[in-house]
Amino acid sequence: MNEAVILISEDDPVLETDFAKEMVRQMRAIDTYGTYDDWSIAKILEPFVLTKEKKREIPVIGDPDEITLSRVKAFYNAISALIEKECGLMAVPMLNLTHEGFGRSLITVGKLVVMDKTLRDVHRFGFASLSKMKDEADKLLSVALEIIGQHPKVAGM
Amino acid sequence: MNEAVILISEDDPVLETDFAKEMVRQMRAIDTYGTYDDWSIAKILEPFVLTKEKKREIPVIGDPDEITLSRVKAFYNAISALIEKECGLMAVPMLNLTHEGFGRSLITVGKLVVMDKTLRDVHRFGFASLSKMKDEADKLLSVALEIIGQHPKVAGM
Repeated sequence: MNEAVILISEDDPVLETDFAKEMVRQMRAIDTYGTYDDWSIAKILEPFVLTKEKKREIPVIGDPDEITLSRVKAFYNAISALIEKECGLMAVPMLNLTHEGFGRSLITVGKLVVMDKTLRDVHRFGFASLSKMKDEADKLLSVALEIIGQHPKVAGM
Repeated sequence: MNEAVILISEDDPVLETDFAKEMVRQMRAIDTYGTYDDWSIAKILEPFVLTKEKKREIPVIGDPDEITLSRVKAFYNAISALIEKECGLMAVPMLNLTHEGFGRSLITVGKLVVMDKTLRDVHRFGFASLSKMKDEADKLLSVALEIIGQHPKVAGM
């Protein structure tokens, strides 16, 4: 993207968090051709930031492409990895989307559904800012950990 | 199929069970063009029976086609419907397959995963006989109901 606007500043403190590190790890994992090898963290995470202006440029109705889908997967995989890190039990993400970009994202730990999100308009997947993305991840993570805390037996099944 | 072998006999007692009725309901639900309208129950359920001989005719490696996928969905949807009927809570099926026919089938009730099955070689989906299919469904159903019975609070979440 040849944009003058910097969406994520290189010294953003969010880039130092576990969440950002996990996100980058997930993005690098799917980077088969090593395109990101010499990219900065900010540059790798930039496509996740979708300002109002950028969002307006994307048509309201559209099918998500492979790159957008891989980002959605990276986001929920990162949350799974963080849940796993916190509770020590395996967290399994599952993404179910129609080709139109509607569907569900699920994370299970044992027999417990710790996250269940309905997704819409996935072709416009993105967050207003990096910190908004982290807020969303933190929220999902804390809800998941709370559910696990309430039902540790089911999570261990 | 112009086969001399009758895979399901018209007076098979299994055809009278709730399971068979639900399976037919599911198959009719996806029958957009009303092809099955004047078919007997035995004829509608016949493609689910895959004898050893028929299985041998299908290559070991292959991608499942839409018709096979719709059958897999019908089977797990039927199990969901039966779970729902028994426990009175909404059961949600979710099928996640790669185009090669590997993946998972999941049924959740509330925040509880009541069925979680790894699927392989879905292009060869089928059962040795109608009663084998019912056995498998009964097993999945009873395990699911047992899990719900153990954790009714999580299932009601």
